[in-house]
Amino acid sequence: MKVVITGGTGFIGRRLAADLLARGNLTGPSGRSEPIDELVLFDAVTPTERAPEWDERVKVISGDISDRETVSSLVDRDDISVFHLASVVSGGGEKDFDLAIRVNLTGGLNVFEALRARAGQPRLVFASSIAVFGGSAMADVVGDHAKQTPQTTYGMTKAACELLINDYTRKGFFDGRSARLPTVIIRPGKPNAAASSFVSSVFREPLNGQPCILPVGPEAVMPLLGYRAIVGGFVALHEADGDAIGDDRAVSLPSLTVTVGDMIAALKRVAGDRPLGPIAIEPDPFIEKIVATWPLDASYRRATALGLPRESDLDEIVAAYIEDYLDN
Amino acid sequence: MKVVITGGTGFIGRRLAADLLARGNLTGPSGRSEPIDELVLFDAVTPTERAPEWDERVKVISGDISDRETVSSLVDRDDISVFHLASVVSGGGEKDFDLAIRVNLTGGLNVFEALRARAGQPRLVFASSIAVFGGSAMADVVGDHAKQTPQTTYGMTKAACELLINDYTRKGFFDGRSARLPTVIIRPGKPNAAASSFVSSVFREPLNGQPCILPVGPEAVMPLLGYRAIVGGFVALHEADGDAIGDDRAVSLPSLTVTVGDMIAALKRVAGDRPLGPIAIEPDPFIEKIVATWPLDASYRRATALGLPRESDLDEIVAAYIEDYLDN
Repeated sequence: MKVVITGGTGFIGRRLAADLLARGNLTGPSGRSEPIDELVLFDAVTPTERAPEWDERVKVISGDISDRETVSSLVDRDDISVFHLASVVSGGGEKDFDLAIRVNLTGGLNVFEALRARAGQPRLVFASSIAVFGGSAMADVVGDHAKQTPQTTYGMTKAACELLINDYTRKGFFDGRSARLPTVIIRPGKPNAAASSFVSSVFREPLNGQPCILPVGPEAVMPLLGYRAIVGGFVALHEADGDAIGDDRAVSLPSLTVTVGDMIAALKRVAGDRPLGPIAIEPDPFIEKIVATWPLDASYRRATALGLPRESDLDEIVAAYIEDYLDN
Repeated sequence: MKVVITGGTGFIGRRLAADLLARGNLTGPSGRSEPIDELVLFDAVTPTERAPEWDERVKVISGDISDRETVSSLVDRDDISVFHLASVVSGGGEKDFDLAIRVNLTGGLNVFEALRARAGQPRLVFASSIAVFGGSAMADVVGDHAKQTPQTTYGMTKAACELLINDYTRKGFFDGRSARLPTVIIRPGKPNAAASSFVSSVFREPLNGQPCILPVGPEAVMPLLGYRAIVGGFVALHEADGDAIGDDRAVSLPSLTVTVGDMIAALKRVAGDRPLGPIAIEPDPFIEKIVATWPLDASYRRATALGLPRESDLDEIVAAYIEDYLDN
C-alpha cells in the first residue's frame, strides 16, 4: 500500500516516516495488514538532503496543499492511507489569517476530497490540537467531551477539520481519525513560529550549551507529550478498530500536565553532569497572551482505552531526546 | 444604513424583513441606531410577486451565494448589517453533501469575507441550528456549553460557521453573533426538505382541513420555538451589547421542549370549533433516523440573560399562526 504524510519533512513527519519504514506495514482499506511499498513525504519545501533512513520506498514531493490538483495527484491509489500533518502553526496563524485558512482549511478540504475520490474507505489520521479549546467558557479539564471554543485561528481551523472529518467519515467517504495533540516536546533544531516553541527551547538550548530566554514564567502550566508517544499515538490511532472509536473520530492524545518549573527541574535531573546553557525569563506579552488561552489540564480516557501510548514522566522525554539527538 | 438578509425571501427571511421594515432602524457599525434606507432580500430564486409590505426600501436580488463576487456586490456599504439565513436544510443536506458544503460553508465564507472587506465592524447575525448537537456523546441537555458533534452535514456546516464567526469576530473583522435555532414552527405553505418539516405540518395541514401524515410517533420529543420569537431573537441578538455576549458569539435561542403528542393536544385546544383535517402516523425510517439524532432537551440561560424572547407555551404559537396566516 501507499502512505502519504503531508507536512512529511517536518519534525514529526520525519519521525513518523522513520517509524513507518521500520514497521513496514499498516492496515489498508481492505482491513488487512499490508506492506508499505510507497511512502510520499509531501511538504511545502523540499529538503536539501535525504535522511539516511529514506530508502527506495520514499518519495519527497513539494507543492502547495491549497491546490486541489496537487493534492489529488498524491492520492492516486485506492490502497492508501494519509497522515495529514501539514499546517500553519499557532503563532504563524495569528500573524497571517489568510494563510492559516488557505493551508489549514482549504488544504484540509483538498485532502478530504482526494480521499473521498478513491474506492473503498482509506484511513486518514489528522493532527488536530489541544488549541481547539480556549476562551472564557473553557472547562478546567479539557478533553473528548469538552466544547471547542478556540481562541486562535490555528485552533479554529483544527476544530473545523475535526468536524469535517467526523462528517466525511459518517458519510462513508473515508475512515478518518483525528489525534488531538497537546504541546509536543522536544523539537530539535531551531525555534519555530509556534507560540509553544519555548517549551522545546527550555530543554534544547541548555542541552546545546546555549542560553534559553523564556517568554513566560516558571508557574506557567500546560499539558504536553513527547514526540515518541505522539508518533506512537498516530500509528495506534491509525490501527485502531473503527467501531471502538465510534462516531466522534477525534481523540485527545494522552498528556502530562506540568509547569515550566517542572520542565527545568527534569532537565537538570536528567542532564546530570552535562554542562547546561543558562535559562532566563523575559516575559513576551504576545506569547503570554496566547499561552493564557491554553487549557490548564487535559483528560484522555478514550485514548487510554484505545491503547495510545504516553511517556511516564518528563524525565523519560528528556532522556529520549538526549538518546535520539545528542548521543546519536 | 443598509441591511442584507440572505435567504431573504424564505419564510423566516420574509418575516424578519417585515419586522425590520416596521422597526425602521437598527444599531449600525457606529454603535448608534440608524434608519434602514435599503433592505436587500437575497435568495437563490426570485419570487414572482412582491409582498405588500415591501416598500421602496426593499430590493430583491437573486443569485448564487457560493459565488464570491455576487456576495461581495451585496455588501457594498460600510454602514451595513447582514442577517445570514441562506442555507441548505437538514434533509436536503443529507441527500446532497456537495450542495450543503457549497451553500452553507463556501457561502458562509463568502459572507464573512465580504463583511471583512468593509471599514468598521459591521454586525452579522447568523442562523445556526440545534442540529450542531448529536451523536453518541451528546449531553442530555444541550446548550451554550455542550460539545458539538453533529450527525448531519447541515449541522456540521452550522457548527463550522459558528467557529468561523467566533474567529472573524475575535480578529476584529466584523461583529458576529450566531443564533442557534431549535426547530421553528409553524411554517406556512407546503412541506419542505427539512427533516423537521412534519413539526409544522402537524399543525398546518389539519388547520387547512388537510390530512397530516406524521413520520414519527406521538412520543417523539424536541425543543422548538415559534417564528415570532425566532425573529425577535434575531433582532434582539443583533441589538445586544457585544461585551455582554463575550468571546463565544453563538447563543442557543430559547425553546419549548414538547412531544408530538403535546403538539396535537395544543392544536385541538386552540382550534376550538375549527374543523381539523385528520392526523395519521406512518413511520418513515429516513426521517426517524435523523430525528433520533436530535437533542431531547435544551438550555438557554445566556439567551435569557441577553433578553431574547420565548413564547410562553405551544398554545401561544398556534394562536399566532391562526392570526397571521388564517384569519388575515
